[in-house]
Amino acid sequence: MTRSWWGWGTVEDAVRGAELDTLLARARTLVPGELTDHAPPAVGALGLPRPRANPPASLARLCSADPADRAGHAHGKAFRDVVRNLHGHLPRVPDLVARPRTEDDLVDLLDWCGREGIAAIPYGGGSSVVGGVEPRFDDGRAVVTLDLARLDRVLEVDPVSRAARIQAGVFGPHLEDQLRPHGLTLRHFPQSFQFSTLGGWLATRAAGHYATLHTHIDDFVESLRVVTPAGTSASRRLPGSGAGPSPDRLFLGSEGTLGIITEAWMRLRPRPRWRARTSVRFADWGAAVAATRAVAQSGLAPADCRLLDAAEALVNAGVAVGGGVLVLGFESADHPVGAALERAVELCRAHGGEPSADLARSSDDAGTAQDRGAGGDADAWRSSFLRMPYQRDALARHALIAETFETACTWDRFDALHQAVTEAARHAIRRATGAEGVVTCRFTHVYPDGPAPYFGVYAAGRWGSTVAQWDDIKTAVSEALSAHGGTITHHHAVGRDHRPWYDAQRPDPFAAALTAAKAALDPAGILNPGVLLPAPARATRAVPDRGREG
Amino acid sequence: MTRSWWGWGTVEDAVRGAELDTLLARARTLVPGELTDHAPPAVGALGLPRPRANPPASLARLCSADPADRAGHAHGKAFRDVVRNLHGHLPRVPDLVARPRTEDDLVDLLDWCGREGIAAIPYGGGSSVVGGVEPRFDDGRAVVTLDLARLDRVLEVDPVSRAARIQAGVFGPHLEDQLRPHGLTLRHFPQSFQFSTLGGWLATRAAGHYATLHTHIDDFVESLRVVTPAGTSASRRLPGSGAGPSPDRLFLGSEGTLGIITEAWMRLRPRPRWRARTSVRFADWGAAVAATRAVAQSGLAPADCRLLDAAEALVNAGVAVGGGVLVLGFESADHPVGAALERAVELCRAHGGEPSADLARSSDDAGTAQDRGAGGDADAWRSSFLRMPYQRDALARHALIAETFETACTWDRFDALHQAVTEAARHAIRRATGAEGVVTCRFTHVYPDGPAPYFGVYAAGRWGSTVAQWDDIKTAVSEALSAHGGTITHHHAVGRDHRPWYDAQRPDPFAAALTAAKAALDPAGILNPGVLLPAPARATRAVPDRGREG
Repeated sequence: MTRSWWGWGTVEDAVRGAELDTLLARARTLVPGELTDHAPPAVGALGLPRPRANPPASLARLCSADPADRAGHAHGKAFRDVVRNLHGHLPRVPDLVARPRTEDDLVDLLDWCGREGIAAIPYGGGSSVVGGVEPRFDDGRAVVTLDLARLDRVLEVDPVSRAARIQAGVFGPHLEDQLRPHGLTLRHFPQSFQFSTLGGWLATRAAGHYATLHTHIDDFVESLRVVTPAGTSASRRLPGSGAGPSPDRLFLGSEGTLGIITEAWMRLRPRPRWRARTSVRFADWGAAVAATRAVAQSGLAPADCRLLDAAEALVNAGVAVGGGVLVLGFESADHPVGAALERAVELCRAHGGEPSADLARSSDDAGTAQDRGAGGDADAWRSSFLRMPYQRDALARHALIAETFETACTWDRFDALHQAVTEAARHAIRRATGAEGVVTCRFTHVYPDGPAPYFGVYAAGRWGSTVAQWDDIKTAVSEALSAHGGTITHHHAVGRDHRPWYDAQRPDPFAAALTAAKAALDPAGILNPGVLLPAPARATRAVPDRGREG
Repeated sequence: MTRSWWGWGTVEDAVRGAELDTLLARARTLVPGELTDHAPPAVGALGLPRPRANPPASLARLCSADPADRAGHAHGKAFRDVVRNLHGHLPRVPDLVARPRTEDDLVDLLDWCGREGIAAIPYGGGSSVVGGVEPRFDDGRAVVTLDLARLDRVLEVDPVSRAARIQAGVFGPHLEDQLRPHGLTLRHFPQSFQFSTLGGWLATRAAGHYATLHTHIDDFVESLRVVTPAGTSASRRLPGSGAGPSPDRLFLGSEGTLGIITEAWMRLRPRPRWRARTSVRFADWGAAVAATRAVAQSGLAPADCRLLDAAEALVNAGVAVGGGVLVLGFESADHPVGAALERAVELCRAHGGEPSADLARSSDDAGTAQDRGAGGDADAWRSSFLRMPYQRDALARHALIAETFETACTWDRFDALHQAVTEAARHAIRRATGAEGVVTCRFTHVYPDGPAPYFGVYAAGRWGSTVAQWDDIKTAVSEALSAHGGTITHHHAVGRDHRPWYDAQRPDPFAAALTAAKAALDPAGILNPGVLLPAPARATRAVPDRGREG
């Protein structure tokens, strides 16, 4: 299998043949426009500039100046990244891609960057959709992307406490492969599972499999090991602590600006033995939302609790329904969960929900995001889920605008937020493209005090302008969701794209504290400049005083 | 009711009469020694120095120089605090106690402190057991204790999202009184519930009612409002977020060193309708621990899951058992919980546990920490729980050493930690007192990956030396638990007493980041000097540049 340099996943898994025909046929029913395919340029035709960095001999063996490497690491995997790649528009690429094999390699690379004033961009799977790995700054500095993929081992398993010490560069499937012989799983399955890493999940506070309770990866962290220019931070492995502000919580979500996560002790669990799943259809969206809130506030804590609106159900699960479909799933390694599902369904019925006929329970062992299991509409939507990024790329090649954005807000604000954001998106689509588009909504995660809504946008673009068109739409919806009390991101991180709204959202004193913390840990300002905080106006050269261990 | 200036709670609730006789009789069976009562000195006899601070007229009305106020705010409520009070040993007391009525008052007070270089100690209920509210520094600065008790209102309730905006100075019972008409509860019941405040819980990452899942107050925070010398930080109310490192998590556990929490939006829940409780006896401690681990890892998430060892069961619940007693409780506002209890009991039986005959379920509405309900040994222990601080004071007056300490560690390390800490405590007691003492252990909270053990120490002291004797014991056990991978505190906070072990525990780069964050938020270094971080060697005078709002 070959990783695509310009788009999602592997070259072999790209949408083609009958899947492509079906996808385009469906697209034609949704939005107007010609559908002409635009193939990506060859890497050799990109005309990349010569690398500006020259590593010492001891590090040269870790560094690649290969054009496909440099191009493939220049952007994340947002719609705007893929389209810019399709146009061969890569004005800034890393000068080198370095692949440390050990933490010592990483320390040496970071020391070199610090000495030379080279910007260092930590890189896991590169699935950022917010410009998190893109060298988007023009201060003359050379850029080295630090690709952690070789740090991919489970180093230690503690079966008693159910935890493992894991290197940060491991990809999702390889991680689960290493845990399986121990009967354990991290069970963190973001949509990017196949092409993202533990370190990336931690640095961006990724959300995973669980729709309730333990939504973010944060909750599974026992301890972190983080290499910073000011020394290596190693927190103590603890199940819980109240000793000052949490050190780990400062690094979780720091997106490579404070240090580079190299290892973590992660909490694991046994693979589920009991599962119960169904989907519930609603004729009315308001009733569907009310039912979902009732389930979220019930304390039943379903593993799955994903509400699709009518458009989402139609576009991505092929289900025609008036109000929405709630996908419900319970699971346990210890005890049957049928009664919990029944109570959740009862709550849904009280709001007019109709469970699918095959209110199903199975005792399958579930190993990966591609769980088998019964669930009617649920399964249709789940298998679609993993194809979505590939389909997004195929649509992007045909000048369609296909992208998502997400947020979270309290329940009391959701109706107004949903209405305002949907209207803002539709209005912006009309303004940007001159035609109607499709806006869908689903809840990826729900909390007792609010949902995490996830929106899809589909519109016919103009080839050559779809990035600008999307940027207009994105700005409009970001303004709307910020104005209505949502967060600029529930789990896509901040990166560079979300900065204006993140800067407005976070309290100024916290920004001052974070800026000061960064100056203490990264005095030369080499770590992922422009993410979370403004990039320094000019590169600083400094040899930070660093120890090896915290 | 009159608050005791020297000891726990109110003067009226102090141990006396038959309760005192029983307590002393039990003490005589445990440890040797004469039991002579030592009454506290009168406040007037303390000879407090004249206040060194002179507030402007606009603030004078908020400030008290009353000796009982100053003495009552000089120490927290640890054993060593109470004993020092009994000896009239208060070498450092705040110069003034200020009681802001509004957040603006607080801002004005903090501005004044900043201008004058006066140290400001935030104060909630004053129940710190780690020197968190004690002006333990000798740099010539005047000290103003900022008592937030007048900021005691629930300002807003959102019944849809089940959350409320609450002022930080509210005490536990008054908070629950204000929530009760809405059918909601915070359900955070630390042992200090009656005499501690929301702001104190947040600033110290207090642990409460729930033995599993949501153990710390941190998890119930939607947003915080924090007054800092550099401006007021107000985070957005959100059910979940992934936008950078959590701003709230930096202030949670900051113990008044970065700012003063004035308000929080807190997640609430309806009062439970279904409850099931029992206690399970074990003949063997190892089996009891294994059973508790099985329950903690089962996903059943009991509200109560507190394991008492044989000594703890005997001393505090009057129960004679070979290995231990596990108190189990489930509760829900939505659905019956009997099946969950049965499954937990089944797991206990598999480890040789015998549930009490009255495996009981009730549907009582439970309003306070003094829940009614059935549970045999459990109830005996629970009612004892709330009397413990009062009894500790009575024992302290009789020259007994009675104190607790706590930690958390992963399951794989627990046996070695337990053995080492117990031995260290016994050895230190012998060394310090020349006689045998009693060391008990219970789990206050449990996690899938480890327990939070809580130790009790009882020994016969020498009047006039019990603080020094306890300090020797505390040092020995702190060294032992740190050496065996425990945290220096799971929920008692760091304050000034835990500093040596906290400093060793936290990663150096995090300490550098925290120091830098404090310098940004509190440039004059006036906030709670010596807590979490070293007190500045000399007072700095500075007029920080502050805005009102973040």
